[in-house]
Amino acid sequence: MSVLGVIAGGGDLPRAVAQSAREAGREVFVVALKGSITEGWAEDFPHESVFLGEPGKALKALTKAGAGDILLAGRVDRPKFNELKLDAKGVMVLPRVVAAARQGDDALLRMLVGLFEAEGFRALSVAEAAPGLVCGEGPLGRLTPNDDHRHDIASAFRIVKALGALDVGQAAAVCEGLALAVEAAEGTDAMIARIATLREALRGTPDKKRGVLVKALKPTQDAKTDMPVIGVQTVKNAAAAGLAGIALEAGKSLIVGKQAVAAEADRLGLFIMGVPA
Amino acid sequence: MSVLGVIAGGGDLPRAVAQSAREAGREVFVVALKGSITEGWAEDFPHESVFLGEPGKALKALTKAGAGDILLAGRVDRPKFNELKLDAKGVMVLPRVVAAARQGDDALLRMLVGLFEAEGFRALSVAEAAPGLVCGEGPLGRLTPNDDHRHDIASAFRIVKALGALDVGQAAAVCEGLALAVEAAEGTDAMIARIATLREALRGTPDKKRGVLVKALKPTQDAKTDMPVIGVQTVKNAAAAGLAGIALEAGKSLIVGKQAVAAEADRLGLFIMGVPA
Repeated sequence: MSVLGVIAGGGDLPRAVAQSAREAGREVFVVALKGSITEGWAEDFPHESVFLGEPGKALKALTKAGAGDILLAGRVDRPKFNELKLDAKGVMVLPRVVAAARQGDDALLRMLVGLFEAEGFRALSVAEAAPGLVCGEGPLGRLTPNDDHRHDIASAFRIVKALGALDVGQAAAVCEGLALAVEAAEGTDAMIARIATLREALRGTPDKKRGVLVKALKPTQDAKTDMPVIGVQTVKNAAAAGLAGIALEAGKSLIVGKQAVAAEADRLGLFIMGVPA
Repeated sequence: MSVLGVIAGGGDLPRAVAQSAREAGREVFVVALKGSITEGWAEDFPHESVFLGEPGKALKALTKAGAGDILLAGRVDRPKFNELKLDAKGVMVLPRVVAAARQGDDALLRMLVGLFEAEGFRALSVAEAAPGLVCGEGPLGRLTPNDDHRHDIASAFRIVKALGALDVGQAAAVCEGLALAVEAAEGTDAMIARIATLREALRGTPDKKRGVLVKALKPTQDAKTDMPVIGVQTVKNAAAAGLAGIALEAGKSLIVGKQAVAAEADRLGLFIMGVPA
């Protein structure tokens, strides 16, 4: 099996993917995206650091490392195009990148993956490279949603799918029929945090939890680049915001640290539920 | 012409409606919703203060005042049903109110209006009672949207319509194709404010404005109860968040204080645009 090249943006996902693939016996080479990657962990792997404007440098490093499959994981911060550090390849593809970025985050990510595919690399999804991270069907911890929660889960999925079709965001929170918060450019953590600032009549509290968080793949998204992901911090945040649980699409979303997530959900009194996609 | 009963929730709209109707020569009686109404202004009118759970008291006051037409305007805070102060009529209608509230804010408001219609009052829209507040077609101030802005306006309208169909919110902000923020239970002001917390690469600044705010009637909404509304504060907030302008649906949204809004938009360098609905 060829070396797996993990092109790593921000958050916990890229590290989880790299570790999971290595534990499964695969050699891993990390391309750390400067300015996006969460610092420090790439040093545990053979790696090269590049700016987003240096695809030439990334391609060269991956080729030299013997990578055949690649994977783009983690949050990639939209660059300020007038501040990009560009290599020769970056200059050539910049017009296409700018055009894709104008169509939204998903188009940008697909375009970046396409760059590598055009050079002969095979782009894997996280589910292919690290199947242990994929959310299964049913409850992850001890708790399960009640009828109120199931209602809110269905309603939040409708919202996320409608928003996703317009490339807006991946997450929404609903409490007894009321849409508490909907994710756009601020990201899921900031979205969850503001639920606690709403009037208490509308939402739950850590002592009396109400409402659910749903994250789902946008219909416009490619599972190769941007599957929804939760981890222990998501569970802590949801509990602090007074939510009763989190629902994900089985097979189409990722859980970083399943055992730790289940333990934290049990400890804080939340359900984590994989529902059929 | 009968007396106009203005059932007044929070925000600037109820006062603007009452003043506009009185300036047009109509007698106005205000039913101030305790806990929701913005304090103070009802004293300028013949009025009665009631809790949301006291429809009996409201109906009696309106009948005594000789009101034939009524209008519900302003934000009505969702009550905690276990803390409601209820009169006899309130007790009778409570099951229907709770059921409507579970279906969302719009269903709740429609239900409340229906209560008054069932007692023989005629429910007016703000557009009928105070046509001077209705947004017209075209720019309100000196500035007009450029092509980028027009693109973003179209995109934001698509988002708001999709969200509105699910009773989520009325507003969205888009900057060069990227959805910056989408409104749910937090309200438009809080939604605008968080744009300024996003990374600067994604958004404009007061000095270099980018992106637009759009507010639109939800398809599920009744123009009688909850037309989108902006005022001078909305313009100030949008400018502080670095947005380049605001677009509304002509004929289906309201502007409180048109002259002041136009002057403030000109001063701060924003466009205010009414687009065909």
